[in-house]
Amino acid sequence: MTSSLEQRAAEADAIDPLAHMRRRFLIPDGLTYLDGNSLGALAAHVPAAVQDVVRRQWGEHLIGSWQTSSWWSAPTRVGDRLAPLLGAAPGQVVVADSTSVNVFKLLVAALRAAAPRTELLVDATTFPSDGYVAQSVGRMTGASVVPVHPDDLAGALSRGTAVVLANHVDYRTGRLYDMASHTAAAHAVGALVVWDVSHSAGVLALKLDRIGVDFAVGATYKFLGGGPGAPAFSYVASRWQPRLDQPLTGWGGAADPFAMSGQFEAAAGIDRMRVGTPDILSLLALDAALDVWDDVDMAQVRAKGLALTGFFMDCVRELLPPELAEVVTTRGDDRGHQVSVRVAAAATLVGRLAERGVVVDWRPPDLLRAGFAPLYTSYGDALRGAQVIADLLSE
Amino acid sequence: MTSSLEQRAAEADAIDPLAHMRRRFLIPDGLTYLDGNSLGALAAHVPAAVQDVVRRQWGEHLIGSWQTSSWWSAPTRVGDRLAPLLGAAPGQVVVADSTSVNVFKLLVAALRAAAPRTELLVDATTFPSDGYVAQSVGRMTGASVVPVHPDDLAGALSRGTAVVLANHVDYRTGRLYDMASHTAAAHAVGALVVWDVSHSAGVLALKLDRIGVDFAVGATYKFLGGGPGAPAFSYVASRWQPRLDQPLTGWGGAADPFAMSGQFEAAAGIDRMRVGTPDILSLLALDAALDVWDDVDMAQVRAKGLALTGFFMDCVRELLPPELAEVVTTRGDDRGHQVSVRVAAAATLVGRLAERGVVVDWRPPDLLRAGFAPLYTSYGDALRGAQVIADLLSE
Repeated sequence: MTSSLEQRAAEADAIDPLAHMRRRFLIPDGLTYLDGNSLGALAAHVPAAVQDVVRRQWGEHLIGSWQTSSWWSAPTRVGDRLAPLLGAAPGQVVVADSTSVNVFKLLVAALRAAAPRTELLVDATTFPSDGYVAQSVGRMTGASVVPVHPDDLAGALSRGTAVVLANHVDYRTGRLYDMASHTAAAHAVGALVVWDVSHSAGVLALKLDRIGVDFAVGATYKFLGGGPGAPAFSYVASRWQPRLDQPLTGWGGAADPFAMSGQFEAAAGIDRMRVGTPDILSLLALDAALDVWDDVDMAQVRAKGLALTGFFMDCVRELLPPELAEVVTTRGDDRGHQVSVRVAAAATLVGRLAERGVVVDWRPPDLLRAGFAPLYTSYGDALRGAQVIADLLSE
Repeated sequence: MTSSLEQRAAEADAIDPLAHMRRRFLIPDGLTYLDGNSLGALAAHVPAAVQDVVRRQWGEHLIGSWQTSSWWSAPTRVGDRLAPLLGAAPGQVVVADSTSVNVFKLLVAALRAAAPRTELLVDATTFPSDGYVAQSVGRMTGASVVPVHPDDLAGALSRGTAVVLANHVDYRTGRLYDMASHTAAAHAVGALVVWDVSHSAGVLALKLDRIGVDFAVGATYKFLGGGPGAPAFSYVASRWQPRLDQPLTGWGGAADPFAMSGQFEAAAGIDRMRVGTPDILSLLALDAALDVWDDVDMAQVRAKGLALTGFFMDCVRELLPPELAEVVTTRGDDRGHQVSVRVAAAATLVGRLAERGVVVDWRPPDLLRAGFAPLYTSYGDALRGAQVIADLLSE
């Protein structure tokens, strides 16, 4: 069986239109890295870009770099670089703070915009941090927080629904939800939607503008490759910006921060999502990392991601004993670029895989997750990952 | 006059016990950098440390670095490195998010701890961002926000006061307030205090524990030299940690983040101040930058800072026409390590000074600020700064 899979992998890699992109990343020899869904690999040119920020911009130009290196405007400038990947026209994306902090800002702002409605529907399968923040928002605003499985959203929506907090891709199963239909369903009852696109940014061509999404948030250190803990992005549709009333009113979001006025007046546009002083080293590492996306056709990325995950599922089904490993991720196209496999002792298995040079991760209690970043993951990587998992399960 | 000042500068530099520290920083030749109160200079070893984080930790070890390079625990590990500078025993300081975000967390937590009291006294001279955030906190919690000049604090405190938000050093005038007496006055009426020590961390030996401060917050990119937009620190006294109830309940502050539980349970200690994924590049640049403080006697730092600012005030008084330049900063020891000078057209003057290689900053409408970082600012720098200001004012 392996030989047939090897042939498939070799053929797919040989005609892969994105194969050349791998050379732009520094991936250690011999490593099979299937965790770009958690921490994206390092693009080869990023270390030099970071050195320039540290040595020249900080070390030589010091405080002047807030203007001469455009540090102060970097959150929106980098946001505008991300915008095409999100399907957003310029002026609607800003990079600042962590995903969780942005969820707080956007949920409070969305609830204020949706007043007097007070019901907040939260994806019951959400990455926990979003749900934790939603609980706190409910406590502070008086909103009632109602967990709803994404499949049950249509039935849960009502004229009392203020806001829906939804995940585009389930972080456990890898399932991709239909952003257009869920958004339309929410809008049909007059509710607003905040989408967490952490696991779909860099996976497929998002269409936030075209779908009419209200708000979105996402991590930049996963498929986008911004680096460990790189700041997150927020999207606020233009139509919401003039009345966007977010609660973390730091000077970064003020109309004229350096006027040092005692009274807060929010900036006119997306800048009002900013809070404190921008985190320059991490933000400009992300800025550099985004260079690799300039030359990429997202349709190719998506096609390869589906092909890679499909091939990996074939490998799992052919090589792994079905009684020990069950693929949880759907075979349909409604999936992101990760495949989740239910296995016993997932944590131990992930550790042993790492010792053999295959990096995946896991989520409790029993899900092994393999992520496929089309810019640097090959079909050969997918096969080797499955082979080593099979070897360990058979020991 | 200048020749006498030159002699004083030369003599003071010759016997400066901290003079050797300047070699540990990369300050461009010919630059007189008097803005370490805004953005600290780059320590010479930091670029290599950042490269190691980027190339080896991220590039080679990838996701494994969350454990093997202790990325996940970095916020409290770096916090514990800061703790001695703050006069804090271990386990009370964490580095995460911006100063403004931390002000939000601490004010809400302090108000919850002080319930049913609802009055929030806010330093009327505060750096605007703290005041903006306090207004938002008031709106979200129902607390009444009352601006009070620090000199009037004692009279404003009452049994209805829940929390005081105070600045240790006035960012405009450089005045240093008495943390011990203000804290004692607040405690005497049963109120809690949140101190912003952004302009005193790295200036003098803080004594948060000994004074019995409840909460503190501060920037790390000023005198501490952590780099542009480096994450801020928060201090929560041990006695408050078990009931600390802060509103940004991201997974970083959960008791067991990787259990991915649907229900938030706060971490036991200072970790509960954390929110999202730590911002590793900026956080570990700060970690490296703190190395220079390991060998420093804070008493020497404070003595030199007072001497430098005193000498600069002498230079200003001797060299600048009094009708054009008025020193606003006190001659007493109740000042930080900055000197503020009232001048006409401050913004223009600061730009022209930069062209002549003298970097200071300004705050509206008419305050020129010169900062003195004892680890790398010399008496000769202070004199040259005053001389060039004098030259420009006389043109």
